[in-house]
Amino acid sequence: MTRHPKILALTILLLLACTLHAQENLRIDANRLEATLMQLATYGRDADGQPNRVAFSDGDLAGREYVRGLMREAGLTVRTDAAGNLIGTRPGTEPGLKPLAMGSHIDMVPNGGNYDGCVGSLAAIEVARTLHENNRLTRHPLEVIVFSNEEGGVMGSRAMVGELSPGALAVANSTGYTMGEGIQRLGGDTLRLDEARREKGSLAAFLELHIEQGGILDREGEDIGIVEGIVGLNWWDVTVRGMANHAGTTPMDLRRDALLAAARFIQAVNEEALAMDGQQVATVGRIRAYPGAPNVIPGRVVLSLEIRDLSTDVIQELYRKIRDRAIGIAASSGTSFEFEALDTTGKPALTAPAIQQAISGAAGQLGLSSRKMRSGAGHDAQDIALIAPVGMIFVPSQGGISHSPDEFTSAADMANGANVLMHTLLKLDQQDN
Amino acid sequence: MTRHPKILALTILLLLACTLHAQENLRIDANRLEATLMQLATYGRDADGQPNRVAFSDGDLAGREYVRGLMREAGLTVRTDAAGNLIGTRPGTEPGLKPLAMGSHIDMVPNGGNYDGCVGSLAAIEVARTLHENNRLTRHPLEVIVFSNEEGGVMGSRAMVGELSPGALAVANSTGYTMGEGIQRLGGDTLRLDEARREKGSLAAFLELHIEQGGILDREGEDIGIVEGIVGLNWWDVTVRGMANHAGTTPMDLRRDALLAAARFIQAVNEEALAMDGQQVATVGRIRAYPGAPNVIPGRVVLSLEIRDLSTDVIQELYRKIRDRAIGIAASSGTSFEFEALDTTGKPALTAPAIQQAISGAAGQLGLSSRKMRSGAGHDAQDIALIAPVGMIFVPSQGGISHSPDEFTSAADMANGANVLMHTLLKLDQQDN
Repeated sequence: MTRHPKILALTILLLLACTLHAQENLRIDANRLEATLMQLATYGRDADGQPNRVAFSDGDLAGREYVRGLMREAGLTVRTDAAGNLIGTRPGTEPGLKPLAMGSHIDMVPNGGNYDGCVGSLAAIEVARTLHENNRLTRHPLEVIVFSNEEGGVMGSRAMVGELSPGALAVANSTGYTMGEGIQRLGGDTLRLDEARREKGSLAAFLELHIEQGGILDREGEDIGIVEGIVGLNWWDVTVRGMANHAGTTPMDLRRDALLAAARFIQAVNEEALAMDGQQVATVGRIRAYPGAPNVIPGRVVLSLEIRDLSTDVIQELYRKIRDRAIGIAASSGTSFEFEALDTTGKPALTAPAIQQAISGAAGQLGLSSRKMRSGAGHDAQDIALIAPVGMIFVPSQGGISHSPDEFTSAADMANGANVLMHTLLKLDQQDN
Repeated sequence: MTRHPKILALTILLLLACTLHAQENLRIDANRLEATLMQLATYGRDADGQPNRVAFSDGDLAGREYVRGLMREAGLTVRTDAAGNLIGTRPGTEPGLKPLAMGSHIDMVPNGGNYDGCVGSLAAIEVARTLHENNRLTRHPLEVIVFSNEEGGVMGSRAMVGELSPGALAVANSTGYTMGEGIQRLGGDTLRLDEARREKGSLAAFLELHIEQGGILDREGEDIGIVEGIVGLNWWDVTVRGMANHAGTTPMDLRRDALLAAARFIQAVNEEALAMDGQQVATVGRIRAYPGAPNVIPGRVVLSLEIRDLSTDVIQELYRKIRDRAIGIAASSGTSFEFEALDTTGKPALTAPAIQQAISGAAGQLGLSSRKMRSGAGHDAQDIALIAPVGMIFVPSQGGISHSPDEFTSAADMANGANVLMHTLLKLDQQDN
């Protein structure tokens, strides 16, 4: 009587160990992942052979057809939602559990790179395929989501959380199609956008694998980045007004040179961003002087101001400091500054600590080094964070190059990321939400 | 015997006094001058009714036809030279004397003003008409010249001194016509441009009346500016190279921001121009950042640098100081600066002291206040100075506004300038060259 329970307990432990061991040994097919990435890269090149798979283009449509086929091979049931998001689903074994979702996007900026959102999209499909081929069922339903038009305003994920503004549908991208036209081209339906919307709490979790787009992992030789949060960003158009005048007949001391004031402002932006503790960044990327002739003192300058940080408070604090500097520059130069806040591309989004922990555990099991970091770039996960706990896994970008045909992530790094994605998913699948 | 010579001498003095008195009392017709200016302003307006008499346009052709008629009414023999310059001539009374020339231009910058070159052109015709109507012959032959396409590279005056580069003929202005096509439209002949050329020493003098295009006379309440010289100017294209990168993922301290370096440079240009003694001016009027998106750190900036002064040495000295500052900025910001010298629009030109004196004397006789000044803007006289002694007379520009529909010079100021022009011409006519 006393020995039997022990044998039973041992047997259970052995079975559990074998199961865990088999689960721990599960690996995605690195060669297949690389091959699908190379194949996807053949869709949507421009006349010079450069990557140009902008959302709504013929190349985008062709790439999505290819991805749809891959989803089917992974055993997923595929549909397109009203916002043009491509969604592959698989049921779970336990009724009542919410879906675990993962994915990214496959559209790119004009002459962008082949890794960006593609690595995360194809890795999610590869994870589903590996589970499918190994008959590895999950307790939660699974969803693989390839979001529509991420680069042109995170359109698909915004629509999914009900944050796509009606005005956005009229905005055209470099293809010439407006978002409204584009959604129809992708097989969505602008009249039924509400159907694409997911309620808060309707997903157990969302995981996004993405290339870092910065140089930290590459420089420091780390395998995996565990994203703590995605910075928010605010944009302003700043107009500096002075007085246009003849560059030959107006003495230096009688000028009200809008470009000279703008130059002082650009320096002030840099100084203030550097002066604060923290990792906030501020950038002036676009500038135009009017009338813009070499022999006319500029009377007006319009420039862009962008501030990013994980904290909205920090963004606002830096903005106030920059505005104060502008007031000082205006007073000393006989100019005026006007700030026009533009639609923000994204609010700061923190990832779920429990998911960060799961990613960290998965990386450790796989023998991969990892570090926590922030995402300076915006992602679909940023929007999904409004309705679900999210996690993000970064893999190295060689040289930190991004949004460029020179973008590169090695096949080994992609496979590492996909395996971390899979094992994070399996860990989350053990939780009851 | 002793009284007769005295009587003779007295008689001669009296006659001379009467002649001088009549000559001193000669005045142009201020109302007629204003009326012709208003009439000329009706030619070459754009669809919005704004002045737009750009060289080679239909409006320019119509304006020239009107001016040609005015020249004929002034008793001048009119022709168009091979460079499209409109020239009215009248013989002198003494054979062997070189012509005394005067004039300006009637073309304008796009949406320029109605005073600019028009005041000087119409005043020269009004002077000729006044002399004609008063049967006031001159010892020297007279020429009234309306130069072609001043605003698009002082084309007519450059051709007249043999300095119009062959490459310039291919340059189009806002009408879409190239200079070569434009010359043909004006009735010139690009194949016979050499025939428009005047030899050095072939003119006794050239006089140009012009609005100041600056605010000095207006501000100081002076009637007449006696131009000591026309500043030369040099243009450079300055290219700043850093490294374009993602504005979200690149920390502030790892940036090589070309626009930040350009901002420091723009300030340095201003500081160096102010730091030197003298009236030199330096201007950055045009700037472009690449790629020029709010969310990308600029990797390249191209801007214009213009320096003007009466002395080529001062221009070069200031340029060296500015280059030195650029070297320092490049070293501290991880960027590089490249300077490309462009075709200069003009070399500094000094006016003839004897003519300055004649202008001063004429203004004094007319009871007008005057002051010496430099011209910060380029003029046809700048080119003609290469082959002849030149003089320039400035009249006030209200508020210093120029190259704008808001340009304005009062009828009284125009009449003052025309009278000074006439009496300067008559003084120079007494000289034997």
